[in-house]
Amino acid sequence: MKPLLHAVESSGAASPAIPFYAPAGNECALFELAWRRRLPLLLKGPTGCGKTRFVAHMAARLGLPLHTVACHDDLSAADLTGRYLLKGGDTVWTDGPLTRAVREGGVCYLDEIVEARKDVAVVLHPLTDDRRILPLERTGEELSAPQNFMLVVSYNPGYQSLLKALKPSTRQRFVAIEFDFLPAEQEIAVVTAESGLPADQVRPLVKLAARLRALKGQDLEEGVSTRLVVYAAGLIAAGLTPAEAVRAAMIEPLTDEPDVRAALVEVARAVVG
Amino acid sequence: MKPLLHAVESSGAASPAIPFYAPAGNECALFELAWRRRLPLLLKGPTGCGKTRFVAHMAARLGLPLHTVACHDDLSAADLTGRYLLKGGDTVWTDGPLTRAVREGGVCYLDEIVEARKDVAVVLHPLTDDRRILPLERTGEELSAPQNFMLVVSYNPGYQSLLKALKPSTRQRFVAIEFDFLPAEQEIAVVTAESGLPADQVRPLVKLAARLRALKGQDLEEGVSTRLVVYAAGLIAAGLTPAEAVRAAMIEPLTDEPDVRAALVEVARAVVG
Amino acid sequence: MKPLLHAVESSGAASPAIPFYAPAGNECALFELAWRRRLPLLLKGPTGCGKTRFVAHMAARLGLPLHTVACHDDLSAADLTGRYLLKGGDTVWTDGPLTRAVREGGVCYLDEIVEARKDVAVVLHPLTDDRRILPLERTGEELSAPQNFMLVVSYNPGYQSLLKALKPSTRQRFVAIEFDFLPAEQEIAVVTAESGLPADQVRPLVKLAARLRALKGQDLEEGVSTRLVVYAAGLIAAGLTPAEAVRAAMIEPLTDEPDVRAALVEVARAVVG
Amino acid sequence: MKPLLHAVESSGAASPAIPFYAPAGNECALFELAWRRRLPLLLKGPTGCGKTRFVAHMAARLGLPLHTVACHDDLSAADLTGRYLLKGGDTVWTDGPLTRAVREGGVCYLDEIVEARKDVAVVLHPLTDDRRILPLERTGEELSAPQNFMLVVSYNPGYQSLLKALKPSTRQRFVAIEFDFLPAEQEIAVVTAESGLPADQVRPLVKLAARLRALKGQDLEEGVSTRLVVYAAGLIAAGLTPAEAVRAAMIEPLTDEPDVRAALVEVARAVVG
Amino acid sequence: MKPLLHAVESSGAASPAIPFYAPAGNECALFELAWRRRLPLLLKGPTGCGKTRFVAHMAARLGLPLHTVACHDDLSAADLTGRYLLKGGDTVWTDGPLTRAVREGGVCYLDEIVEARKDVAVVLHPLTDDRRILPLERTGEELSAPQNFMLVVSYNPGYQSLLKALKPSTRQRFVAIEFDFLPAEQEIAVVTAESGLPADQVRPLVKLAARLRALKGQDLEEGVSTRLVVYAAGLIAAGLTPAEAVRAAMIEPLTDEPDVRAALVEVARAVVG
Amino acid sequence: MKPLLHAVESSGAASPAIPFYAPAGNECALFELAWRRRLPLLLKGPTGCGKTRFVAHMAARLGLPLHTVACHDDLSAADLTGRYLLKGGDTVWTDGPLTRAVREGGVCYLDEIVEARKDVAVVLHPLTDDRRILPLERTGEELSAPQNFMLVVSYNPGYQSLLKALKPSTRQRFVAIEFDFLPAEQEIAVVTAESGLPADQVRPLVKLAARLRALKGQDLEEGVSTRLVVYAAGLIAAGLTPAEAVRAAMIEPLTDEPDVRAALVEVARAVVG
Repeated sequence: MKPLLHAVESSGAASPAIPFYAPAGNECALFELAWRRRLPLLLKGPTGCGKTRFVAHMAARLGLPLHTVACHDDLSAADLTGRYLLKGGDTVWTDGPLTRAVREGGVCYLDEIVEARKDVAVVLHPLTDDRRILPLERTGEELSAPQNFMLVVSYNPGYQSLLKALKPSTRQRFVAIEFDFLPAEQEIAVVTAESGLPADQVRPLVKLAARLRALKGQDLEEGVSTRLVVYAAGLIAAGLTPAEAVRAAMIEPLTDEPDVRAALVEVARAVVG
Repeated sequence: MKPLLHAVESSGAASPAIPFYAPAGNECALFELAWRRRLPLLLKGPTGCGKTRFVAHMAARLGLPLHTVACHDDLSAADLTGRYLLKGGDTVWTDGPLTRAVREGGVCYLDEIVEARKDVAVVLHPLTDDRRILPLERTGEELSAPQNFMLVVSYNPGYQSLLKALKPSTRQRFVAIEFDFLPAEQEIAVVTAESGLPADQVRPLVKLAARLRALKGQDLEEGVSTRLVVYAAGLIAAGLTPAEAVRAAMIEPLTDEPDVRAALVEVARAVVG
Repeated sequence: MKPLLHAVESSGAASPAIPFYAPAGNECALFELAWRRRLPLLLKGPTGCGKTRFVAHMAARLGLPLHTVACHDDLSAADLTGRYLLKGGDTVWTDGPLTRAVREGGVCYLDEIVEARKDVAVVLHPLTDDRRILPLERTGEELSAPQNFMLVVSYNPGYQSLLKALKPSTRQRFVAIEFDFLPAEQEIAVVTAESGLPADQVRPLVKLAARLRALKGQDLEEGVSTRLVVYAAGLIAAGLTPAEAVRAAMIEPLTDEPDVRAALVEVARAVVG
Repeated sequence: MKPLLHAVESSGAASPAIPFYAPAGNECALFELAWRRRLPLLLKGPTGCGKTRFVAHMAARLGLPLHTVACHDDLSAADLTGRYLLKGGDTVWTDGPLTRAVREGGVCYLDEIVEARKDVAVVLHPLTDDRRILPLERTGEELSAPQNFMLVVSYNPGYQSLLKALKPSTRQRFVAIEFDFLPAEQEIAVVTAESGLPADQVRPLVKLAARLRALKGQDLEEGVSTRLVVYAAGLIAAGLTPAEAVRAAMIEPLTDEPDVRAALVEVARAVVG
Repeated sequence: MKPLLHAVESSGAASPAIPFYAPAGNECALFELAWRRRLPLLLKGPTGCGKTRFVAHMAARLGLPLHTVACHDDLSAADLTGRYLLKGGDTVWTDGPLTRAVREGGVCYLDEIVEARKDVAVVLHPLTDDRRILPLERTGEELSAPQNFMLVVSYNPGYQSLLKALKPSTRQRFVAIEFDFLPAEQEIAVVTAESGLPADQVRPLVKLAARLRALKGQDLEEGVSTRLVVYAAGLIAAGLTPAEAVRAAMIEPLTDEPDVRAALVEVARAVVG
Repeated sequence: MKPLLHAVESSGAASPAIPFYAPAGNECALFELAWRRRLPLLLKGPTGCGKTRFVAHMAARLGLPLHTVACHDDLSAADLTGRYLLKGGDTVWTDGPLTRAVREGGVCYLDEIVEARKDVAVVLHPLTDDRRILPLERTGEELSAPQNFMLVVSYNPGYQSLLKALKPSTRQRFVAIEFDFLPAEQEIAVVTAESGLPADQVRPLVKLAARLRALKGQDLEEGVSTRLVVYAAGLIAAGLTPAEAVRAAMIEPLTDEPDVRAALVEVARAVVG
């Protein structure tokens, strides 16, 4: 997928209020078109490749408030829609974050949606077809999403299992974008900007990251994220030796296996020195 | 099953208040006869083939209010019938959506009934035999369904498992209709109407959808829904290239497997270009 | 088992208040004797063979109020006996349906008892031995069942599994009756009476039902119930063709397997035309 | 084990207030000695062999109130000891049946103890060693059992499994008695007394019961209880034929398997005619 | 391990307030040293070998109050530390037994710790390192254990399983003592003292106990406890024959298997007569 | 990893308020740099190697308050963030320990994080990226962590399993340090300081500890912790023989297997005498 020119350009424009995001393809254009057509969006990709930053960037560019919910194993529909709480002896309804987002408009971003309990997916169904409604069965209300409401969900396909997977009846309600790690030059730029370490010192770290990502599925469950490269660069900028920084920020967080760790240390020595 | 003529014709008549529905067989006649005989109805079929739209269409045609409940893993009988809530220190009974539907009359539609907890099926039993009653054991009430009450349930047979299946003692209380995707010409008409893309540009998308549906059970868990074809058409109408639109709306939502995705991209290139 | 003459005759007498029931053996006499000896009764048989109707018939004949509880996976002893609910800040005891039946007398019918949670069986033990008491441990009460209280339970032996079965210590507290589908001529009479379709048009439907019931255990989990034959007859009476009616009411409710469905359609074509 | 003379004699003496019990061995003497030594008692034996009646008999003979708790899968320690309930806005402690028995004295009989949740066994530990105390952790109380308190528990060894078994640390706190069905002449006497059917008509029923009990472990999960023989005798006394009464009371309650049932019918025909 | 002289002597001194305990090794000295060094203590050993009595003995000797908690499957950290209860409309904190022990000082004895839920172990961690604190997260308090607080836990290694085991991070916080049954002469003395039966009649019972303990792991899950020997002796002292007493108190409580029971009866006949 | 000189030196400086900690590598420098860069820290290592002490030492050195939470199987996000409690009829929000730490600043240390329920990890995500926020969904608040807030988590890699493991999306948010047991001379110094036993008597205990740690993975689940060596030394200082002290503090806490224990006793005899 090639980026649409206008999208890349505008995303490159640094506005003080807009979080920095370096697009790798047509994702900014797709987000904007989905927003215009009132289509819900599904972001797929590995840990730390920038999905959360992308949503923050696009929400700011489009001038939309952003409601983020990090999903987890115990997150239920009621956590999203709301509950009755006791106040002064009465039960009073209290909106959940999804209900607040539908009432106020803006982007509602459900991060790692496959982690949530399965009743969550069903709450999303009437919001993601042409009805665009959120029924609150406990209160008897039926909220219509405003024009500027957009639902975005994400997950890491590498984590999906039989028990944790979006059903086709849910997936097929979303336009979907596949994310991957940034190309090397873009990643160097990002790490340099965020860590303050000069680009020539960042380059070997990014090279090492690429080497470690190639080991995914063999010795490593997941490749190293850009965030960890930023950590390593930051520790070097703060005075740690590259070897120590790489070990603490790019090797120890990846594995507990002594054999694998020793192999990674060798790879790091060859690349970073 | 051949459509009954009068049913097809009247369903084709576009009324402003009646959601558009293009019948594929005798389903409109069957719904109407079941409604006249006070028989409960079971709709079976794959994701996105139009069951929900069909129910909305028929309820509107028959002038009946529609009560829709999307079932999920945690939906229990009490969620349908009602609960005691605390108000001012007392517990006050609050009707659930099924109880509201029985009190007010109309079509009560339980979508994806096999997802719900098993006590739900039992609540439906006295409503689906000649008694047509809803006992509310917690309040001691026994509601008689009014003449214009009709119960409709649906599920996707492709999802059934040993754990998630309707028991014969429940199934055998319903008249049942099997749904499938629309024939090509009807689907082109629907997608054109909903996306605004000209029919000649829609035709290859529908052809691609048929190709992808044929892969179900091999590489794909579920064929592509008409909804996703509408999404793709809408993105093209909004300016995306057909290749980008098809990838975002008809391929990425179907699979996370790199091999399968690559194969689907090839299929799409051959059909859509 | 041959029917006792007087029982069959009186059950054949149509009283306006007594639901119609066509006995197949000595079940009416057995029910009455069990009632006279204060013995609890266990009804075994497949889905839709008339157990519920039989209990309604006998309760009406004996002039006893009928309390029916449809059991399900989450039905616990407290659902049967009662609970404390909050009223005006206090917890107030509220009888469950079994407790109400013991206080008021009459037949208490627990349908599909094996579905209920296992603590239910234990609640029944002191009610089903010579003590005939219902201890309410939460309130400290111990209710003695009145002379005209009778407990009837039922289940479908075809559904029993290791997890869902009555323990011998529970079963051996009941006199038991095995039910099966009606003989052909009796079933034709019942379907004709309930659907309004002439007997000669009902005859092939009943013949088809017998053919489908013979497939149980091979291709079908459960044979077709008399209720579904009544549905099919009713749809024909309302104007549907026999082929359409049979498909919607006697084939689609039985199976989702395309191969099995095709075979059943062939069987139906041979029998019904 | 031979019965102690004085015990058998006094148990044979029919007092109006003392439930009838025909001892089979030294169980009455053992109960009385255990009571005198303040030792807890464990009764083991099959369904319907008279354990519950035995406890009622002994409690009455010793002039002790009897507190019976039928244990089940969901019975927890709190169900036995007590709970806080809301009254007028406060939580008020409410004794459970074990706590009431400890406060008031008498025999506390926990029937089918292995069914209860495992925390129940632990509640019994300090009551069954030389401390003879019941600590109520929620209230901070520690009740000392009075002199006339005795704990009796029972279970059916045939039901024990890995998941459902008394741990040695619990079992080894009890004096234990093994029960079995009554010898034939004693059983005939009991059935005659309870059903009103003459002894010569009862004799073949008891003979049949012995034959059916011999099938336990082969075709039957559990032999027929004396209670069911009483049922059969009662139905014959009320006018049913022996064949019908045996089928309803001694065969249908034992099995749902058509093959096994047919075999039992043959056995019954040979013995009862 | 040889007993420290002074410890054995003082434990042999019978004080009216100190429960009798016959030490088998250096356990009294170890307890006292652990108490002086503020070290937590772990007691390991089979059912009925005297661990609970030992703790009661040592607490009394050291003049310390004793707080005993019998652990079970549902015992959670909140059961030990405390809960909020409703009083007059407010939630009021109520100390659990561990919190009471920490506030008041003395020995807190958690019997069968491996049975408890796993969050219990974690509550013990800050109490069992040099911090000696009990954080009450729900109230925000952090209690410092007083000088005279000592934590003692016990379990039966024979019951440990993969699911029920102390993690090394918990075990390695305790000084540990292994217990076994008493040597024969000591056991005879204990049984004689507790049952009132002359020592020469106790001797064969203790001999039998040794024979039965040797069968552990073959036919018996657990050897016979000293408690059961005391029961048997007591029943003989009360007038039962040795054979009857042994069967009721030393054989029936050990096994339900007819074969094993018959073998044990033979063993008993050879030893006791 | 070589220690940074200045870090080692300052950690060696004994301040009255700073808990003693003997660094083994660059961990003090890494902690300080992570704190300066606002990076969260992950400590990995076996039981009893000093992770908790290290955090207490660093918090004191940096003048930061320390909030410690011992994680366990039932610890949920709500336990960390807070709950609504009833006060005077109203539900009042009450901060959990993580929320208190974010409000007040300082080090928040989650010990054995992998034990906690999985929703805990998700609560940490927005705290551990560049947002550094703690959203309280139940109250609608979003707390920004102050400059002096630092999150530290720990776990024992030896305990991780498929069910209990940090997901990469969580791990890759932390700088990580691997811990191991102290080198011999450092461990001797620590044990001497903490037990009061002379170093020459401590030396064989530390030698034995090394021998026992080498057995990990063969006969022992986990090597002996420094804490247990301190226990053994303390018991010797209090008068127990080395053999008795080693058995009670360094062998019995490690194993329940008679064979393994016998082998460890042999090892101990060879090393300690």
